Amino acid sequence: MSFRLIKTEKSNNIFNIILNDEKNQNTLSEEMINELSEVFEIAESDNEIKVIILSSIGKVFCAGHNLKDLNSKRSENDKGEHYYKKLFQMCSELMISINKHSKPVIAMINGIATAAGCQLISSCDLAYSSENSQFATPGVNIGLFCSTPMVPLSRTVGKKQAMEMLLTGDLIDAKKALSIGLINNVFDTEKLEENVLKIANKIASKSSATIKIGKDAFYKQKDMSLKEAYDYTSKIMTENMLHKDSEEGITAFLEKRSPNWKD
Amino acid sequence: MSFRLIKTEKSNNIFNIILNDEKNQNTLSEEMINELSEVFEIAESDNEIKVIILSSIGKVFCAGHNLKDLNSKRSENDKGEHYYKKLFQMCSELMISINKHSKPVIAMINGIATAAGCQLISSCDLAYSSENSQFATPGVNIGLFCSTPMVPLSRTVGKKQAMEMLLTGDLIDAKKALSIGLINNVFDTEKLEENVLKIANKIASKSSATIKIGKDAFYKQKDMSLKEAYDYTSKIMTENMLHKDSEEGITAFLEKRSPNWKD
Amino acid sequence: MSFRLIKTEKSNNIFNIILNDEKNQNTLSEEMINELSEVFEIAESDNEIKVIILSSIGKVFCAGHNLKDLNSKRSENDKGEHYYKKLFQMCSELMISINKHSKPVIAMINGIATAAGCQLISSCDLAYSSENSQFATPGVNIGLFCSTPMVPLSRTVGKKQAMEMLLTGDLIDAKKALSIGLINNVFDTEKLEENVLKIANKIASKSSATIKIGKDAFYKQKDMSLKEAYDYTSKIMTENMLHKDSEEGITAFLEKRSPNWKD
Repeated sequence: MSFRLIKTEKSNNIFNIILNDEKNQNTLSEEMINELSEVFEIAESDNEIKVIILSSIGKVFCAGHNLKDLNSKRSENDKGEHYYKKLFQMCSELMISINKHSKPVIAMINGIATAAGCQLISSCDLAYSSENSQFATPGVNIGLFCSTPMVPLSRTVGKKQAMEMLLTGDLIDAKKALSIGLINNVFDTEKLEENVLKIANKIASKSSATIKIGKDAFYKQKDMSLKEAYDYTSKIMTENMLHKDSEEGITAFLEKRSPNWKD
Repeated sequence: MSFRLIKTEKSNNIFNIILNDEKNQNTLSEEMINELSEVFEIAESDNEIKVIILSSIGKVFCAGHNLKDLNSKRSENDKGEHYYKKLFQMCSELMISINKHSKPVIAMINGIATAAGCQLISSCDLAYSSENSQFATPGVNIGLFCSTPMVPLSRTVGKKQAMEMLLTGDLIDAKKALSIGLINNVFDTEKLEENVLKIANKIASKSSATIKIGKDAFYKQKDMSLKEAYDYTSKIMTENMLHKDSEEGITAFLEKRSPNWKD
Repeated sequence: MSFRLIKTEKSNNIFNIILNDEKNQNTLSEEMINELSEVFEIAESDNEIKVIILSSIGKVFCAGHNLKDLNSKRSENDKGEHYYKKLFQMCSELMISINKHSKPVIAMINGIATAAGCQLISSCDLAYSSENSQFATPGVNIGLFCSTPMVPLSRTVGKKQAMEMLLTGDLIDAKKALSIGLINNVFDTEKLEENVLKIANKIASKSSATIKIGKDAFYKQKDMSLKEAYDYTSKIMTENMLHKDSEEGITAFLEKRSPNWKD
């Protein structure tokens, strides 16, 4: 696979997708969204890949949409309406595809993640950052409220904490991001990769089939009432029990040995 | 505008609504609810106002419903049923109107906020308190569970943290309120106003049109599934892009100058 | 009442249900689920009981489903499908019954709670643990994702924090469980019971009728939109006002005396 704005690395079942458009602050231009959508699809069908890490090159993890591109479309006949509709829909689909992806996606942030960049890390299953990383939804400063970023943000952190980020546009540091639940942990910058790889490898050692079943069920049950969620997940548990990897996993556990996953 | 139980102040686009019924612990009597509903409506149509601060005079920020009033209606033919229905509906509408208000509402708490008083600050977009402020939903102590207060409370803090407040009725201090996400920050008492004004002025410097679009979308998308929320906010982003303030904001950003908002 | 896998104690309106199957790590075997379901039903109709504490004997609070039992059903004609369906449904109903129970259920954890054991404490209204207690949803390690446990877990802690527990299967300590909102507080091991009893007795001193009204409304309104929740709880508040315990409670409060609850 060959991309212009991203790099990829694969080793030990870990697939690293690296935002590599430093001069444009790794913005989610149409091309970047297309490349990311494509690479996630490739990762979906690659059976060697068990865990995806999303990282970046440069001081800015991702600065959101490309404002120069956005503004340039205002000269079109419809003032850009068609383009904006398409772009925000494509971007929303990319974010949803991270939740729908069968493989866990871990954001490894070393830098600043703003606007749709903050949306991107909110959409990942897990997120870890270096101590000097920062986060913001500053659309309000440029007259474009972070309305799509707030979808995963307000489903990740509390109502008032999301509102403060959205209304002030202020950068928050990694420690505050951790305290409000936006990220899972903060590591020393030089230990970030080592720690994230450790977590990624741990998850990669599990049965892929099991993780696929569970991750899919997680996001589906989140939008259900308690009763619906239990009816649904009870069925999922039964399906999971009938999968060969649960037989192997439970048997290995009872025999006090390591499991040999089929999937 | 002239009110009996509240005071208002306006300066630099900041509108301060001050609960001013100290002898009744700023309770949400029928009259207080009416005055608050009216003043929020006035603030809605006043284009000079960009941010609302809700504060109070006295040691009690707001003690919830007026219990003397409530009990006095028991002697009516229907044991007060009609009155209670009307009052709780009026109060619920007041709370919802804060979410629907086009201008950000910041609770500035220096004192004790209990029952519907705690509901009031849960309903505000942002909340900041002095270090000696306290919060409780103590209805359970008087045989009247805080069932309406728990609506915004349980949408602001975690399930178990809400339940502890509701079942014990205990006061929690500002530090705990911060740790569970009920408020955004705690300041030294003498620095509270200065800090809140700084935040309010920062928000007031943004485009009102942008904040109106974003705040409205925030509460609407909160009740949607992830897919619905993305479909909805993608449209909002396009509408926002077509607004003159986003053109000005993005252009100013690209030209490295301050924006001149039209709205 | 006589049970084989649990013990019960009753004193001062506090009912203690103690998981007492230490040699099986207090697993939720079919028999254990049946006994728990039965004892919660008994507690429902016992008017002396005002608060329920759920605790355990042994180093493991509850290790989830009984894996030996589960695996043994694979030899059946349908590979256990019928049994698993029934078991996960029974277990889900037990969990939901804790939310539906008219009496507050407090988990008092001194030990390790994993998988459906972690689900059990997530399902309780309140949870307090000793400092050396630990929590995990480690199904992923045995090829059986914790899909039913994640239902209450993801409604108790944040999205990313739930995902980290589910994908890594790692044990978290009491301090972390507190920081993510899984439990209400952590106490020194030797002070755990004393502190939980204090909280239980405080709640037991309230009107049972009031708590029944409020607890029921809490879980119902959680699954509603904001508007629906307010319409619903406004009605509940009126009903509550017309109950004799709210008349007594409010009158006692205004007369500065202790209330004498009828219920």
